[in-house]
Amino acid sequence: MPDSVVADELLADALNRMAQDIDGAFDALLPVPDDARARLIEAMRYAVIGGGKRMRPLLLAATAEMYGVARDAAIRAGVAIEAIHAYSLIHDDLPCMDDDALRHGKPTLHVAFDEATAVLAGDALHAFAFEILSDPAVSADPFTRIELVRILGEASGSRGMAGGQMMDLVAETSEFDLPTITRLQQLKTGALLGAAVEMGAILAHVPPEGRTHLRGFARDIGLAFQIADDLIDFDGSAELAGKAVGKDSKAGKQTFLTLLGADRAREQARMLVDQAIAHLADHGKEADLLRVLARYITERDH
Amino acid sequence: MPDSVVADELLADALNRMAQDIDGAFDALLPVPDDARARLIEAMRYAVIGGGKRMRPLLLAATAEMYGVARDAAIRAGVAIEAIHAYSLIHDDLPCMDDDALRHGKPTLHVAFDEATAVLAGDALHAFAFEILSDPAVSADPFTRIELVRILGEASGSRGMAGGQMMDLVAETSEFDLPTITRLQQLKTGALLGAAVEMGAILAHVPPEGRTHLRGFARDIGLAFQIADDLIDFDGSAELAGKAVGKDSKAGKQTFLTLLGADRAREQARMLVDQAIAHLADHGKEADLLRVLARYITERDH
Repeated sequence: MPDSVVADELLADALNRMAQDIDGAFDALLPVPDDARARLIEAMRYAVIGGGKRMRPLLLAATAEMYGVARDAAIRAGVAIEAIHAYSLIHDDLPCMDDDALRHGKPTLHVAFDEATAVLAGDALHAFAFEILSDPAVSADPFTRIELVRILGEASGSRGMAGGQMMDLVAETSEFDLPTITRLQQLKTGALLGAAVEMGAILAHVPPEGRTHLRGFARDIGLAFQIADDLIDFDGSAELAGKAVGKDSKAGKQTFLTLLGADRAREQARMLVDQAIAHLADHGKEADLLRVLARYITERDH
Repeated sequence: MPDSVVADELLADALNRMAQDIDGAFDALLPVPDDARARLIEAMRYAVIGGGKRMRPLLLAATAEMYGVARDAAIRAGVAIEAIHAYSLIHDDLPCMDDDALRHGKPTLHVAFDEATAVLAGDALHAFAFEILSDPAVSADPFTRIELVRILGEASGSRGMAGGQMMDLVAETSEFDLPTITRLQQLKTGALLGAAVEMGAILAHVPPEGRTHLRGFARDIGLAFQIADDLIDFDGSAELAGKAVGKDSKAGKQTFLTLLGADRAREQARMLVDQAIAHLADHGKEADLLRVLARYITERDH
């Protein structure tokens, strides 16, 4: 682990560069057409440009760069996973889902545009992710590209994020125990964070057996990430978070927090981050950004 | 073109076999899990099993089998494109979109389940399509798999189906001319029908330059298909169609019918089918099913 001054610089630099690179890539890859589809592309751009921590592209690129992958390829794959994340937020914010009006500090897509456009823009971003991954610009090797598709498809579908979101809907009216909440969160948030790390390793042609420690790392930070999110919902500020807070307790939802209490949840998150970093023990300085990101995940206030 | 008795038998057999094969494949590929995701998978199964004409898998398999591709591979790719088609219908039927209560002769998904589940089941089917295509069971060759993903992603995203749906939303409040309506329909319906034919050829390793006539075939039947749909909406029966009819005229929407009138639209559809069949002139009897399907597209009453 680098000392804290170095770590802070490494993190600030990585966050800034990634914000610029992802915004730039979406801007270039989503030109507004001169026809009636313009409103769709404008809605997609509204959702993906200029907001979010870019945590998934950061994890993907930090892993890829640890193995020497060119940044361009990592950014393209990062755009794909960020498109999936963005579509899930758009649909999650819909009136029939969480009915949220604020996201990344601005009106949600269905408020700024309309519901039908929000459904379609989410769907189009979903397809866009796979369009990007099937483009040879992400990798000249077709096996690498189809592996990226496989990992991202599984992480976002019924065995991943969408499955976790369904469990979350069921949780509103059911009593879940800690193992079930853990499983819910592993699917809802953890699957895509895990895919980010794994996609970085796939770009570097790391074989599946060489990714075991990375999967362990991802699993631990995935849970830590969710606990941190619960804590932000519990005692965070809506202004910093850029979205409504206090929703879970209002909805009477079970979370790590309601099951563990705030103190034990905080402690658990810290333990998970230590454990995550321990998975990287065989890596040298080249894994410092992953280590720093793991810390940042629990220490962020938004 | 086979004589009409032979054609009828060929068509009836193809429709029956495909209905069985696609239902069987979805049943096998979507087992209901023993956890809180069960409701999601049940919703996905409700939407994809036991309904629809399976036109896209039929076109895909008819093309693939024309070149001698094993049926199993064609069915798997057919399941992927049918999953995309099904998700688009689920989202299209939502209250914020077309607000339809009837589909394939039964309540739409958001009526039978609820809106949030319908959004999620659509999203999960969308991801499922790409999960299926990235599985080596569809083809041992990674290049073939990633090409299937590329074609399906492009056909369903902003440059395809989703783009066409946005144009359709805009059409409700704008005056479109015939070229714009044609473009709208080429994207909204034609893109996915075209992808079906192209995916069949990709499974058979037909190189892009060998697919030109198939693209021509697909473009023509795509428009003919939409005109036939407009005619069913205009003078068809809701009972046969398994969905509400008369919606376009109620919505005051411009269609081929409002622009051409019913007689010219019918004639245009017939001409397009003749033209489509002419694209297959260099093929022998092995293309008979594609020819029969092209005729069926305009002659169906639902």
